[in-house]
Amino acid sequence: MTYCVGIKVKQGLVFCSDSRTNAGIDQINIYKKMFTFGEPGQCQYCIMASGNLATTQGVITQIKKDIETAAARNLLVFDSVQDATDYIGQISVNQQAKAGGGPMFSSNFIVGGQVAGKEPELMLIYPEGNYISATELTPFLQIGESKYGKPILDRIIKTETDLQTSALCALVSMDSTLKSNLSVGPPIDIQFYHTDSLKMGEYFHFDENHEYLRRIHDVWNEKLVEAFLQLPTMNINNPSTTVPTTQVQR
Amino acid sequence: MTYCVGIKVKQGLVFCSDSRTNAGIDQINIYKKMFTFGEPGQCQYCIMASGNLATTQGVITQIKKDIETAAARNLLVFDSVQDATDYIGQISVNQQAKAGGGPMFSSNFIVGGQVAGKEPELMLIYPEGNYISATELTPFLQIGESKYGKPILDRIIKTETDLQTSALCALVSMDSTLKSNLSVGPPIDIQFYHTDSLKMGEYFHFDENHEYLRRIHDVWNEKLVEAFLQLPTMNINNPSTTVPTTQVQR
Repeated sequence: MTYCVGIKVKQGLVFCSDSRTNAGIDQINIYKKMFTFGEPGQCQYCIMASGNLATTQGVITQIKKDIETAAARNLLVFDSVQDATDYIGQISVNQQAKAGGGPMFSSNFIVGGQVAGKEPELMLIYPEGNYISATELTPFLQIGESKYGKPILDRIIKTETDLQTSALCALVSMDSTLKSNLSVGPPIDIQFYHTDSLKMGEYFHFDENHEYLRRIHDVWNEKLVEAFLQLPTMNINNPSTTVPTTQVQR
Repeated sequence: MTYCVGIKVKQGLVFCSDSRTNAGIDQINIYKKMFTFGEPGQCQYCIMASGNLATTQGVITQIKKDIETAAARNLLVFDSVQDATDYIGQISVNQQAKAGGGPMFSSNFIVGGQVAGKEPELMLIYPEGNYISATELTPFLQIGESKYGKPILDRIIKTETDLQTSALCALVSMDSTLKSNLSVGPPIDIQFYHTDSLKMGEYFHFDENHEYLRRIHDVWNEKLVEAFLQLPTMNINNPSTTVPTTQVQR
């Protein structure tokens, strides 16, 4: 599986992805799932992919090919992130159809970026090629094994959250997912995009033994346990007066 | 949906379940998903159910009927929790078959308890009627919307954890699930079983406005955010030297 999260806040965009793919538990490989494209000053895109690896690789290959051949429709010529997202969705649908279609070959993508003169955007493309966008009220989008890491994002990410805090939250969300699901694994990629910069921002690559990743892992675990131990204890001597409705005691 | 977690530690068993069922988002109802049965001094069982409501209700009805009619095979006559689990699994398979079978009518159960002279056991029954048991290395089992609440259980629950802490952890796991998934909702039921007591232990019923549930919710949220803010910050000025492999900038 995969876990990718994209965050859109006022200051810009943050992208975070893992690198583990598996086709059965004995075929585990490391593949980058984050790809950036752009023309400085004109447009910038970061794409993250989950699902069938052949499909996602096919999509990225086609995007690169269209740019290299300066095709009439290529990622760098669109007037809006929406149009670019439509284009990527269409390539995804075509790739899936080539393999015979169906859930087996489906893929999801997160696409974020900005075109000169427009607002930054963050989109999630479904296997059918249609998409939804992040909004102020829904400032993050996830693909892949998204549930383990959702609670911390729900608690922390607001549209006012700064980029650095957003990236840290993405990393913590990733750490919870790594801890609870074997099919998601390092290295972890993090890409920043600063609103109106029209060039890709800072990029971080954390492999399994990266000191900062290990520190976050250890400190978060320690702080969480500390936080847990500070909770008001349950008074076991004061149970509810309500008795379970179905209590059959002979 | 549903979220139920059963925990098996040295001191005993803890069961925690929500009470929301939905068949489409406009048909949301409250149903108890936890049921206890037993003969004090002889055997004790707590059963939690997820999945198709007609199936799970059918299973519980059949279990009660078999006890009431003192059927040759009823929950209170088995020599082991394993045999009792087999029996419940068989009833579940029959109930599903009556409705026509298939994933639509499937249900999962967590069954925990103890029979005099044996160890306490905790089992998860699959829709096919087969089951797995909790062990020292896997001291908790979940059914329903299990992913949101798994990370905290992974961090806290060990076989040495005391019952009260286990119950609190189940409640925090439930709180994370409630926060991230609308289809899981209060009231929350918690049932204790103390090893070798051979009677059901303390029972807690927390409705939405229960003071303790609200306090746990508020304090956990506050402590989590505090813990997050204590993490070593990401030094945005010191990005990785590695550059994304697929970076196409025209």
